[in-house]
Amino acid sequence: MPVATQSLEELCINSIRFLAIDAVQKANSGHPGLPMGAAPMAFVLWDRFMQFNPKNPKWFNRDRFVLSAGHGCMLQYALLHLTGYDSVTLDDIKQFRQWGSKTPGHPENFETPGVEVTTGPLGQGIANGVGLAMAEAHLAARFNKPDATLVDHYTYVILGDGCNMEGVSGEACSLAGHLGLGKLIALYDDNHISIDGSTDVSFTEDVSKRFEAYGWHVLHVENGNDDLEAIAKAIAEAKAVTDKPSMIKVTTTIGFGSPNKAGSAGVHGAALGKDEVKLTRDNLGWTYPEFEVPADALNHMRKAVTRGAEAEAAWDKIWADYQAKYPEEATLLARMISGKLPEGWADALPVYTPADKPLATRQTSEKTLNALATVLPELIGGSADLTHSNLTFLKVSGSFQKGAYENRNLRFGVREHGMGAICNGIALHSTGLIPYCATFLVFADYMRAAIRLSALAEAGVIYVMTHDSVGLGEDGPTHQPVETIASLRAIPNLLVIRPADGNETSGAYKVAIEAANHNRPTLMAFSRQALPQLEGSSIDAVTKGAYILSDCAGTPDIILMGTGSETPLCVDAAAKLTAEGTKVRVVSMPCWELFDEQDAAYRESVLPKAVTKRLAVEAAARFGWDRYLGSEGDMVSIDRFGVSAPGPLAMEKFGYTVDNVVAKAKALLG
Amino acid sequence: MPVATQSLEELCINSIRFLAIDAVQKANSGHPGLPMGAAPMAFVLWDRFMQFNPKNPKWFNRDRFVLSAGHGCMLQYALLHLTGYDSVTLDDIKQFRQWGSKTPGHPENFETPGVEVTTGPLGQGIANGVGLAMAEAHLAARFNKPDATLVDHYTYVILGDGCNMEGVSGEACSLAGHLGLGKLIALYDDNHISIDGSTDVSFTEDVSKRFEAYGWHVLHVENGNDDLEAIAKAIAEAKAVTDKPSMIKVTTTIGFGSPNKAGSAGVHGAALGKDEVKLTRDNLGWTYPEFEVPADALNHMRKAVTRGAEAEAAWDKIWADYQAKYPEEATLLARMISGKLPEGWADALPVYTPADKPLATRQTSEKTLNALATVLPELIGGSADLTHSNLTFLKVSGSFQKGAYENRNLRFGVREHGMGAICNGIALHSTGLIPYCATFLVFADYMRAAIRLSALAEAGVIYVMTHDSVGLGEDGPTHQPVETIASLRAIPNLLVIRPADGNETSGAYKVAIEAANHNRPTLMAFSRQALPQLEGSSIDAVTKGAYILSDCAGTPDIILMGTGSETPLCVDAAAKLTAEGTKVRVVSMPCWELFDEQDAAYRESVLPKAVTKRLAVEAAARFGWDRYLGSEGDMVSIDRFGVSAPGPLAMEKFGYTVDNVVAKAKALLG
Repeated sequence: MPVATQSLEELCINSIRFLAIDAVQKANSGHPGLPMGAAPMAFVLWDRFMQFNPKNPKWFNRDRFVLSAGHGCMLQYALLHLTGYDSVTLDDIKQFRQWGSKTPGHPENFETPGVEVTTGPLGQGIANGVGLAMAEAHLAARFNKPDATLVDHYTYVILGDGCNMEGVSGEACSLAGHLGLGKLIALYDDNHISIDGSTDVSFTEDVSKRFEAYGWHVLHVENGNDDLEAIAKAIAEAKAVTDKPSMIKVTTTIGFGSPNKAGSAGVHGAALGKDEVKLTRDNLGWTYPEFEVPADALNHMRKAVTRGAEAEAAWDKIWADYQAKYPEEATLLARMISGKLPEGWADALPVYTPADKPLATRQTSEKTLNALATVLPELIGGSADLTHSNLTFLKVSGSFQKGAYENRNLRFGVREHGMGAICNGIALHSTGLIPYCATFLVFADYMRAAIRLSALAEAGVIYVMTHDSVGLGEDGPTHQPVETIASLRAIPNLLVIRPADGNETSGAYKVAIEAANHNRPTLMAFSRQALPQLEGSSIDAVTKGAYILSDCAGTPDIILMGTGSETPLCVDAAAKLTAEGTKVRVVSMPCWELFDEQDAAYRESVLPKAVTKRLAVEAAARFGWDRYLGSEGDMVSIDRFGVSAPGPLAMEKFGYTVDNVVAKAKALLG
Repeated sequence: MPVATQSLEELCINSIRFLAIDAVQKANSGHPGLPMGAAPMAFVLWDRFMQFNPKNPKWFNRDRFVLSAGHGCMLQYALLHLTGYDSVTLDDIKQFRQWGSKTPGHPENFETPGVEVTTGPLGQGIANGVGLAMAEAHLAARFNKPDATLVDHYTYVILGDGCNMEGVSGEACSLAGHLGLGKLIALYDDNHISIDGSTDVSFTEDVSKRFEAYGWHVLHVENGNDDLEAIAKAIAEAKAVTDKPSMIKVTTTIGFGSPNKAGSAGVHGAALGKDEVKLTRDNLGWTYPEFEVPADALNHMRKAVTRGAEAEAAWDKIWADYQAKYPEEATLLARMISGKLPEGWADALPVYTPADKPLATRQTSEKTLNALATVLPELIGGSADLTHSNLTFLKVSGSFQKGAYENRNLRFGVREHGMGAICNGIALHSTGLIPYCATFLVFADYMRAAIRLSALAEAGVIYVMTHDSVGLGEDGPTHQPVETIASLRAIPNLLVIRPADGNETSGAYKVAIEAANHNRPTLMAFSRQALPQLEGSSIDAVTKGAYILSDCAGTPDIILMGTGSETPLCVDAAAKLTAEGTKVRVVSMPCWELFDEQDAAYRESVLPKAVTKRLAVEAAARFGWDRYLGSEGDMVSIDRFGVSAPGPLAMEKFGYTVDNVVAKAKALLG
């Protein structure tokens, strides 16, 4: 229909559509289909329901919006631009998918203010949304008062068929249903098309029924292309149900408006093409040139700026009132929001001496977590159904459950991938919460896509991974990490720490908390088995990544390098070699990334180039170690899968004995 | 109740229970709870329904049994022993979880004949089961005739709460429902307990309703502890429904029989303890000493041997008849079962010369796959909804769908993890099928747990991973692998190949097909962008992992090492350096693992120790490369996440230009 006869709302919706169409066409790359089909629901949501302040994208009490179907990011960029965010100008939209632009190929929170989380890998966004909603529920339960509703926002997610096929979304949504997260509202863009064509080829389940089975409140908008009132009614109903998350299935036509491509996979992931863009303009009566937004539409959508300023101002009053009435809570919340850790928090970290009894590092981790829980009220987390193996329960709190959201122990169930993505959401709620999550180290593989996103999206999540080698014993090779730690060290921006004893565990947490506070994730690997408290270990040494644990006079003949449970082995072997007249240095290397970030002088002081006889001892694959071994080094490594046997025997059989380390060292020395 | 009053079936069930109890107690390690609770359903299944031949665990037409809740493996070992498999003697059971035993801590198909797949990581087994059922459906559709039902078996899976919480099981079960795999029957051990205690803490969804939503036939046995007839009735009903997979929820008590621990998490993953073992014996009236099986029970269960022999003999007749009537099909099937590839199959591999036009390796992969599809009828596979990006469609066949199981193009939907686990199941059907599966390389992270199991369980799966670097361009860092290839190279027993052109692609497939045929998985990384056909590349060279692509006279001043899309860059840089008088060797390194498996002389001939100036060029992280670089080498690498921009520009910005490679080489040469 001609522009003249389009309602203001239709003008707005078509403005979103054509910004997406034109940007994808100009880049000759991208996904126009979702923005074209989902523009009506997104418009209704942003225009009639969402609370946000374009001029302050970080406003504390804003509703969170997640585009889980991240490939449709032009939808989000169009909304950000039209509603008045400074982060996405028209020029930015013209630079869609170009080097250095604010409008990358998938939404990136670290590039574009107004984008809450990084999506694109399907299913992650809805799981992040569960985390955002959990963060809100938790803060609301802790800080709201009968006379002061300080924390009160919704989390809205638009997800597609792809998200719903991914297991990670199922894990997170099952948990969301269990927890009854009433302020989580998912709009499912039910367009029946994925990249391979009709979802009939692989995805014919009853999605609504599945969400009902999860315990969600489920609605259906049959005509998501035109029926704005039905969309609005559904969102209103969803908001009104506060004891269950809501899933609104909105049936739409992908690429709505394109005469030849609508409803087909052809419009999913490629530009329409010049001719089809023109035909789509004709078909939708759109007479505006490319990238031009009609003034009426822009004026209408920019009202979000005023609305947002008013909403924030209203909240500011509540906040001021709250500060006056509840100074203690207000001080805490203000500190959390500001991203400042409490003065002296690290003093709570346990310190050990060699006289202290041997403990598994999962046990020293438990002590540290619990010590920190009392000084860091922002610490919140849990395990994927291995609480008493990972030893991650915070004794100062109870279980986070429906009706008990104030508690800080999260119960994830056997859902590692969902757990990681949920923790990303909690971290990216960006209100100071520091999430941790736990499983066996080997199951990092289940959640690797979420760990990668922690690192990429700068989500300060702490991963507590126990049972970190064949030393775990009888569970056997399916449970024994061998290559796992190498695979994690390979991830950019992720700190991987494998502490050797209690002090190094405390040091690892010192690093991890500070890193989380600076939006960097840390993964720690802890032993199942007991380890001695080492002479010379310290909390601060860990912050340098690697350090001299014990040394000889003069230039060492050989350097023994260990991490975690193999560091004591290096110490014992060194004693034996020293007794025989060899000059030995032992270097403890809990964190490669931090060591690599030290200056050259420090690195040289620990691992002098001149000392080429180097022996690494780690109950893991050699992969990656050659960086430190140089051409003449060697390693006691495990370059095959493990085996089911008692832990001490497995360690012995794989060569983790003092005698073998000594023998290997001697072989190196020639 | 006293033994004297126990029915024969009760005796059998309690025999299973006490083998599990005693073995776990002796090992002081393991999971007695599941075997104690699931013994009745397992007994009924194995005694009244399952078709298998204990004396020939590889009998072609056997029903497949998967214990997806692999931690309960003593259940399976007890069944194997009691029904007469030679693989698990009473001595083996006494060696439960010990070094070198046939009874490891989780079921391992490569250790214990009779175990079909390796389970333990939760959710994998049920997804393997979907693959096993797909393999059966496919072979049945291709080989059965109106007068000859040659392929005709069920796949039975016992899974627990943990499996049902994992996303991978949801992915695979959704697909199974879509495909209507009527001969897949899952028994859900609904015991309400996981390691963290009652499932009430995290898992309160309606599992049955979820499976109905997937399109499954769902049944419920309310008393799975005692009501053997109800279990039998449900299995019979499940077998009768042939157009849908069946899920039987069997409500049980974990640790049934233990007076103090039944129904609690205490019995999930730890030995009962000496006292509780005794109390359990008293409670169940079990007067037999440890590891003793009453003769009546053993005699009864060992009837499986006769039953199995008869079943196999009956099938042998069908097979003989089939061979006579359908010699062509019989010859093919016999070849597939024997694990022999057809004579001369590799002649079909495309060969290229430098005169041939540049092609993306995903395109040469497409040509190769299609060339092989005609000579290898056992090749079957597909993509996780990226068919036309991965270019993996076999043009000689159609889509594998309900009613069209004879087709060889599998449509996985956006379910990478399920896809990998399903392909493991197809490979471990062990009837000659060679499964391949495809997605973008970066999404290897989503399916890593399944890839690891391919390598561990010796499942000959071929992973076709395209879009293998920042060269993919605009999709940005969420889609650009950087550390991915390193993380995969770290996995033991997995071949990772990144071919540089058409010939190397053919070589990669030559390796992959032969490896798959020998139960070893291969992962190939292919470019999105076009690459030239190189002078000197060859199919056979790839089998050595690395080779001299171009060389100088005498000892090289420097070696340039490349893989994939960066090999041509090395060639061009070498030309420039050579023109300036430098002696340059170019080594193409498509597969590290194969190179490492060559003898020392070959490795020295390619990378002589004396040549210490080495420059690697790969559009990926440096992690792992130092092994080949030595102490004096350098690399053009990407040690950060990628960026959204057109591919050629991204490559240029990250230093993948001839000029930069030349400059880096000169810097090395000093």
